[in-house]
Formats: sequence, structure tokens, C-alpha cells
Amino acid sequence: MATAVSPLAPAAFPDLPTVEGVRFATAAAGIRYKGRRDVMLAVLDEGAEAAGVFTRSKCPSAPVDWCREALKGGSVRGLVVNSGNANAFTGRAGAAAVAKTADIAARAIGCRPGEIVIASTGVIGEPLDASKFEGVLDDCVARATGGAWVDTGRAIMTTDTFPKGAGATVEIAGVAVNIAGVAKGAGMIAPDMATMLSFIFTDAPIAAPALQAMLSASVETTFNAITVDSDTSTSDTLILFSTGKAAARGCPRIADAADPRLAAFRAALHGVILDLAQQVVKDGEGARHFVGITVTGAESDASAKRIAKSIADSPLVKTAIAGEDANWGRIVAAVGKAGEPADRDRLAIWFGPHRVAVEGARDQGYDEATVSAYMKGQEIDIRVDIGLGAGRFTVWTCDLTKEYVEINGDYRS
Amino acid sequence: MATAVSPLAPAAFPDLPTVEGVRFATAAAGIRYKGRRDVMLAVLDEGAEAAGVFTRSKCPSAPVDWCREALKGGSVRGLVVNSGNANAFTGRAGAAAVAKTADIAARAIGCRPGEIVIASTGVIGEPLDASKFEGVLDDCVARATGGAWVDTGRAIMTTDTFPKGAGATVEIAGVAVNIAGVAKGAGMIAPDMATMLSFIFTDAPIAAPALQAMLSASVETTFNAITVDSDTSTSDTLILFSTGKAAARGCPRIADAADPRLAAFRAALHGVILDLAQQVVKDGEGARHFVGITVTGAESDASAKRIAKSIADSPLVKTAIAGEDANWGRIVAAVGKAGEPADRDRLAIWFGPHRVAVEGARDQGYDEATVSAYMKGQEIDIRVDIGLGAGRFTVWTCDLTKEYVEINGDYRS
Repeated sequence: MATAVSPLAPAAFPDLPTVEGVRFATAAAGIRYKGRRDVMLAVLDEGAEAAGVFTRSKCPSAPVDWCREALKGGSVRGLVVNSGNANAFTGRAGAAAVAKTADIAARAIGCRPGEIVIASTGVIGEPLDASKFEGVLDDCVARATGGAWVDTGRAIMTTDTFPKGAGATVEIAGVAVNIAGVAKGAGMIAPDMATMLSFIFTDAPIAAPALQAMLSASVETTFNAITVDSDTSTSDTLILFSTGKAAARGCPRIADAADPRLAAFRAALHGVILDLAQQVVKDGEGARHFVGITVTGAESDASAKRIAKSIADSPLVKTAIAGEDANWGRIVAAVGKAGEPADRDRLAIWFGPHRVAVEGARDQGYDEATVSAYMKGQEIDIRVDIGLGAGRFTVWTCDLTKEYVEINGDYRS
Repeated sequence: MATAVSPLAPAAFPDLPTVEGVRFATAAAGIRYKGRRDVMLAVLDEGAEAAGVFTRSKCPSAPVDWCREALKGGSVRGLVVNSGNANAFTGRAGAAAVAKTADIAARAIGCRPGEIVIASTGVIGEPLDASKFEGVLDDCVARATGGAWVDTGRAIMTTDTFPKGAGATVEIAGVAVNIAGVAKGAGMIAPDMATMLSFIFTDAPIAAPALQAMLSASVETTFNAITVDSDTSTSDTLILFSTGKAAARGCPRIADAADPRLAAFRAALHGVILDLAQQVVKDGEGARHFVGITVTGAESDASAKRIAKSIADSPLVKTAIAGEDANWGRIVAAVGKAGEPADRDRLAIWFGPHRVAVEGARDQGYDEATVSAYMKGQEIDIRVDIGLGAGRFTVWTCDLTKEYVEINGDYRS
């Protein structure tokens, strides 16, 4: 599907640091379409560790089941990502296909199958013929090179309109370490579905349990705080790999996420994850506006998150933003339906710096022309104060446009 | 907003029985637009009782607050419905406007203000000038007549594309009694929001607590089992009125909803409510397909309802139906994200009579051409069996089309 680059795309792909100890290659394996690069292999040197977070779906894909097991092993040597087939809802055949993929990758790299992690996106319910990886992955190992981030970001795209990357260089105990990662977002190849994938690499020698703790802490306010259309995929996958190569430059090995020497690293990692998560929203299907929704004054942060998600997922709010309409009545309704503690007569609502409602009624100083002008911007900030407590949360979303319906409606009749 | 009648509309407005003891009139009060009938008054004879169910929104409109109080009084003599202004999120001014409306109506009818119930739809956050009802409601009382159901149904429409009515005649202890009602559904007048209103009348002499019990029991599987876009209004209102006039024809007065003489009435009332609820979905904004989603085999009925709602509210499922695409992968994803007990490997899915998935994988007998032909119909039934228990629930919804985005997006920029 040819589609113009999202108007919300960054001006250019960022300049990312090379992460020593990991190399990448892509290939066309003919999973679903001919002549299209549909496989990405990352090869990690011995000693790499990894941690992951995955979809909360009760119907996870076979690769997600596999990764959850594989990451328990501690060591990871390879990552295989394919598009065209999600290997989800494929029963026993799906589990066999994942095992075969791991087997082919392990032979190509020279490691155990349990050291391979796998992610797949594409059509659901279609058996995946893993024999198509035979030969292809050997060739990838031979060609793999480091630092090719834009190619790697592009290789995992489906109908994403731009490659997504983010990175940082920070110090641990005075030694510079690198972080770089890529993500893919909402794309579809009829009759497929959107899947979020992200892979982040660092050369810092941080053990898997510490990686897991930092990743789990960050994901709640980043990837778990974005929503394009409220539809959680069967295949969502975020994996953080550490090659440990910075140890050779004097970086201490760190086993505990609470180690105070990780302060700068933790903040930089969080920034990279947030950047990638926001880029996924900016490439949301049909997106024309990037919207931050902050709820303050809720009874708890968890309550603030549920209210913010209720607003972000409201089709009436999302279509109003598409129409550049400061329709705060729909925000009131979305707060009301969230089921969380709220007092209509204490609510206040802002669009950017403009307060439109206060104490449960329209702000006397509300000027429609000023607010309408604000709504024409590409980035819209909405804040709702509930007036009950100190709970606070921010969610990022995009608008709901006719293009979203067109992309997902297929209209193949 | 001129719009063609929904393709899902019934062929004709039904032939409804007259309910003795209630009369109707409509007028143009100039609430928001000039020269448009925007007020409906129903006048009930002395002795009428009523019961209601209202939005679960934490931000209810001022009329909803008023009705909850008024219905505690037992006696009801008038119903005022206006469009153009929802009188929601209007603070103390909103409560004063409702009180003034009740006062004007009570003087016109000759009763207490507490015997008036009120419903408003339209713009949120705009003060309602209740003085516009002065004179207008007196005139309505003078003109009010019984049996004008199609006019009454039309008078409460906003951007509904057809008037919605349903009724029945059944016996209580051998005496024929009548039930008739109207509803309005998803409509908007920019920058308004959708509100569901429904008013049902019967001449059966049934006391308010028994009316309330029957209404509350029915609403869970009717109006609370429909969803157009998951957005609960601040103003949703369903009121059931009994005039008691059938007592003069020998119908016994009934005080207890468990009275066995109510069996036929209860079933007929449920049928009327379900019919009206389904008509609201069939007039959903932009709707082109009417969709029944039945979940069976869940751990409980409540769990089945949450799974069915997750499917019905999924933008990816709704856009697939708009595209007449039997995209069962999106149904798997919607089951998975519901957060309810589910076992991927026991799921089975049907489109109408066609089973497309079984035991967690594609049905071997699945024929895409057959299922695609089924998806071209206007009414689509989807069934999902979870395979865990005996819980069951059906939800009705419509598809998500570009017209929905257009209607709600306003695109006024």
C-alpha cells in the first residue's frame, strides 16, 4: 500500500550511536509477498543479555509465547523479525514454526535455539512456513553489520510511513555507553492488524534482571501510555538487549537496577523509549494531529490513567480533534463514562494554555476564536483537572480520521 | 444537517396502540435554531406513575439530576423534552434552568413542579434560557392529543434519520392493556454529542416500584447492550410511564413486579424496549451494517458481556465490517484485549452460520468466498465461543464508516 509520509513524521531520522556487539542484516524470504525485504536478523556477540515486555493479550502470538520462555535463559544471541505473517492464532503449527525458525537461526549463528528471540507481524491465523528461512538467515549472518540503524528501522516497517529510531550516549561511572533502538507501529496489510514492535540495544554491561526492572518501570508511562485505536495487538513486543561491550572500556558490570551509578542511564533509556513510543503515535493510521492528554487532580495515578485513556480512546473526542474542533463537551462525557471518581462541579479543562471550563461550567473568559486557532496546530495538549486529589497521568494519542477508516475498512467489496 | 434515511431503517413506522391518559404536543421554542420544532410536551392525567433509568456518567446533565429526584415522588403529570441544548455541564445555572422549566410546565398543566420530568439534548456547556418555554408550554397543553406517535417520535429527533417507535397490546388478568413508546438515538448538531432518549407509555395500572423493577431488569440486555461508539452520553434517559387507565376496563392494580399476572406484560415490555434499542443502533451515525455479537462459553454472563463489548467497540472490528471483510483475526485480538478469562486454544468464531475458527486456529472447512458473500448482507451475526463455561451475552452495534468520522469531525476548519 503506497501512502504518503505522515505529516507528523520527524524531519529526519536521528543520528544514532553504534552499539558494539550487535550487527544487523535484512533479506527477502518471500513470507507473503515476492521481492520485498521481510526478514531482519540481529546477531549478538556472546555475553549479551536481554529483557522484554509483551502484549497483555489473552490471545498472544506464538513468537510472544516463545520469547517469554527464551528470555528466562539469560543469554541471547539472535533476534529474528519477519513481516507478512504474525504467526498468531495458528495453534500447534504456530509453536512448531517458531521452534523451527529458532533452530535455523541458531545453526546460522552457532548457538542454542533458546538463545534466539523472535517477533512476527502480519496476517493472523495463517500458518507460517518457517522453511523459507533456510539459507536466508545464513546469508544474513554473513552480511550483518553494525550501525545501519535507518536500514534496520526500515526493515521492520509494514505500512509505517517512516522508520522510527532513537538513541542516547550517557555515562555509567564515568564511562560513555550507547543506547539505540528502533520501533514499528500501526500498519496493516489487509487483512492484517496493527502490531507494535520495538528493539533497543545498549553496550552497557547490565544484567538481564536489571534491564527487566528498568524496562518494566519505563514502559508503564511510555508504550503503555500510547493508544492509536485502543486495539491491543496479539504480538506487541519490546525487547532491550545489552551486549556488555562497554565493559572493555572500563564500564562496571551492573546487576542491580537500584545501583545509583545507573541514574543517568535510566533517564536516558526512559527518554529513548518515550521517543520511540511517541513516534509510533505520530505514525498512527491516518493520524493528522498528535495529542497529549494529561489528567491531574485524580484520586490516584491509576485513576488518572483510566480517565486519560477514556478521553484518548473516545471516538467522539478523536473525530472532534480531526475536525480541529475544541469540543470540550465530549471531554466531559469521556470523563463521565470512565467510571472513576469525578465531581462534575470541580472539573477544569484546558486546550494548550487556554482554560475552557472551570468548576463544572464554561470558563467565563473562554474565547472560541483563540481556542479554534490553537486547534489548527499539529500538536494538541489537553489537560483535565479532576479537583479531587494528586493523581496524575499523561497519555498520547492521535486523531480519528476518514483515512483511518479507509486504511482499515479495506472496502474490498 | 440534511442526511438520507439510514439504509437500516424499518420499512415503515409501526402501527402503535393509543395509550389512554397521555396526550402529546410539539412546538418551536427557539432554543437554538429558529423555526424548528424543538420542544415536546407529554401531559399525563392524574394518577400516572413512572420509573426511569439514566446515564451512568459521573457527569450527568441537570435534567438527569432533576428526574432522579422527581421520580421519587411517585406521581408524574408532565414530560418536557427539548433539543438544541443538553443543559449539561452548566453548573448552578443548569439546575436553576431545570427548576424554572418544571415550574412553567407545572403551571401550564396545573400540578406541582415535582410532578414534571425533563430531558434535554443538544450542545453541552451552554446555559439554557428556560424563559423561552413561557407561553409555549401553555399552548402545548391546549393542543395536546393522544395517539400521535409518529409525530411524537419525530419531535424528539435531532439528526436521527427516522422516527423510532414500538408497541404491543397484551392481557393482564384477561384485560387488554397497551404499551407504546418512542426513542431517539445518535444524533449531533455541531458541536453537540449523541444522546439516547426513550419514553414508553402504558395504560396498565402498575405502581412505580413494579415499573422500576421491570425496567431495570430489561435495560441490562437492551439499551445497556447496544453501543454505537462506546461514548456514554451525559443525558441518556429512559422513562416508563403508566397512566393506569386500563383499571377502568377491569384491569387489576398491580404493585409487585413479581406478580404472576404480569408475565405477558413483562415479556411484551421487554420486546418493546429491545425493539427501540435496536432501532437506535440502526440509526447509528454513518451505520451501514447492523451487527449482533454473541459471546458464549464465557466464565460468567458478566464476563461474556465484557468480551462482547470489547469486540463491539473495537475500531478495527468495526471498520472491517464496514469493508465487508470477515476479518476474524481482529475478533481474536478484541477477545484477547478484553482482560477476561479466555484460552486462545479453545476459541471458536462464526460469521452467521459459517464457522471460521475452531480450537484456536482457522477452521479447515473455512471457505473465504462463502463468508465474504455473507458479509455483504445488512445484518451480520458474529458468535464467539470461549470454551470455558456457560456465560452468555449478546451486544448489538453498527459498523464504523467514513460517514461517522465526517458527521462527528465537523471539519469546520
